[in-house]
Amino acid sequence: MPYEFKAIRRVEFSDTDMAGIMHYSNYFRFMETAEHAFFRSLGLSIVSSPSDAPVGWPRVRAECDFTLPLYFEDEVEIHLLVREKRSKSLSYIFKFRRLNDSPPRNVAQGAVTAVCVTHQPDGKMRACSIPKSLSDRIQVAPPEMLASRAGGGLR
Amino acid sequence: MPYEFKAIRRVEFSDTDMAGIMHYSNYFRFMETAEHAFFRSLGLSIVSSPSDAPVGWPRVRAECDFTLPLYFEDEVEIHLLVREKRSKSLSYIFKFRRLNDSPPRNVAQGAVTAVCVTHQPDGKMRACSIPKSLSDRIQVAPPEMLASRAGGGLR
Amino acid sequence: MPYEFKAIRRVEFSDTDMAGIMHYSNYFRFMETAEHAFFRSLGLSIVSSPSDAPVGWPRVRAECDFTLPLYFEDEVEIHLLVREKRSKSLSYIFKFRRLNDSPPRNVAQGAVTAVCVTHQPDGKMRACSIPKSLSDRIQVAPPEMLASRAGGGLR
Amino acid sequence: MPYEFKAIRRVEFSDTDMAGIMHYSNYFRFMETAEHAFFRSLGLSIVSSPSDAPVGWPRVRAECDFTLPLYFEDEVEIHLLVREKRSKSLSYIFKFRRLNDSPPRNVAQGAVTAVCVTHQPDGKMRACSIPKSLSDRIQVAPPEMLASRAGGGLR
Repeated sequence: MPYEFKAIRRVEFSDTDMAGIMHYSNYFRFMETAEHAFFRSLGLSIVSSPSDAPVGWPRVRAECDFTLPLYFEDEVEIHLLVREKRSKSLSYIFKFRRLNDSPPRNVAQGAVTAVCVTHQPDGKMRACSIPKSLSDRIQVAPPEMLASRAGGGLR
Repeated sequence: MPYEFKAIRRVEFSDTDMAGIMHYSNYFRFMETAEHAFFRSLGLSIVSSPSDAPVGWPRVRAECDFTLPLYFEDEVEIHLLVREKRSKSLSYIFKFRRLNDSPPRNVAQGAVTAVCVTHQPDGKMRACSIPKSLSDRIQVAPPEMLASRAGGGLR
Repeated sequence: MPYEFKAIRRVEFSDTDMAGIMHYSNYFRFMETAEHAFFRSLGLSIVSSPSDAPVGWPRVRAECDFTLPLYFEDEVEIHLLVREKRSKSLSYIFKFRRLNDSPPRNVAQGAVTAVCVTHQPDGKMRACSIPKSLSDRIQVAPPEMLASRAGGGLR
Repeated sequence: MPYEFKAIRRVEFSDTDMAGIMHYSNYFRFMETAEHAFFRSLGLSIVSSPSDAPVGWPRVRAECDFTLPLYFEDEVEIHLLVREKRSKSLSYIFKFRRLNDSPPRNVAQGAVTAVCVTHQPDGKMRACSIPKSLSDRIQVAPPEMLASRAGGGLR
């Protein structure tokens, strides 16, 4: 469905830090990986082809709640859901589940808002409307899917 | 003062991405760098000495609003302010200013909540009270310093 | 065969830099990913189980020749070959091929030498013999496989 | 002198891995940081100004020998020396010393060869002669400075 995507990633050695767990900055890299895989699943690339108007998606907001740590070699599902579609921006949530737990456990939940921009000749970015060809292919996820949350953990 | 710290970082080539700007995950690395420099400024290291009880600070929440992009070789001030001090956790906000603008401009604002943990013999982490020696040296920033925000930008 | 392994990775947005290509430090992360997948393919983890003597594999040498750049979303094969097996160390070479070229093209070739260490109670590492259970499962690749090299490119 | 530069970096938490030491890929990031600071020390930026012909420096070879590990918060000097200057490429060596040892200890030594390229209109890179304004300001280090090496360690 054009409102969700599930990407799977294994935690790599270089993703960990000296506390023995995945460094928190890498959850944001994983979210973006799921976002780009979602675009590919729609037959699109996040990076426009040379013939298209060059479109980029800088983030204006990112957040993540970390419930349980991730360890080296953990297999993680990153479940992307489209939370909001506006004329110039898209918001997603990302549910992280550790697949090597049985049953899989929610370990983190993040969110990102990205703005559609064109790159000006001077290299600056300017917000622009999401191209129709793309906007038409993306839906907002049903509210009940967006509602559920990870709970528990260290907090 | 024991409620703030200003760290300065230059954006490195490896911090950038193909959009020509600092990758958003790196703001979270920069926040942590300021946090650890803050601890050092108090005569503490974020990593306990061998004689101390081993204490760690995994994040339970992190967020960032990105107002303006950062470019290669930009000089950035990361202004840490202690937002909240609880028995087992600390919350910070981080104001990013680009120093090579005149006057310097607010480019991003982030926040992190970290929980104090001890590492169990089995390698697991368990939330614990912040050691008194540390808690005594840290204050919450005045409300007026916490209130102001970056504005404008792409959104 | 216990002397080689082929891992596949897609170049992610966060792997690129402002030159629009994969940052060179990430080839070293990809090599390590292939190395760990090789260990898993032998039924081993690079990180010992709690019951084993704790063994680590710090690198004592790493190198890479870059022939052609890698771009965002390129699909890359990292072909690991065991180059040398000594009592306390293993050396590998890694051939990078871009799979979305037809035919796939050699884009880089790296090599790593890693030493087997145990972690002392004080946290220091000491070189040790490779555990027999592991050493028995690993062979050196045939010389003709080790000989061929990537050529051409920018140089 | 226009054949050397000393940069100083503190090992950050995000530079470490679960083995408790700096991840080996980060030495390559540190080398590049020293390289760019060297360019700045000559009044140049590694990234051309908009009025210049766009010049880049992709790496064609990189290597590093790791003698002793680096730990969190270690202060490291990265001593860049120009090893070779050719019409289209520059080679450097980088000596890593841990400054918080007394006396400072050699912990690693790396080398990088970077080729001067222009970016073609189609985004591809093509090797080009080093601009004279830049080449004139860079010298090769005296042989005796290039000769000495780090020794010992785990190997």
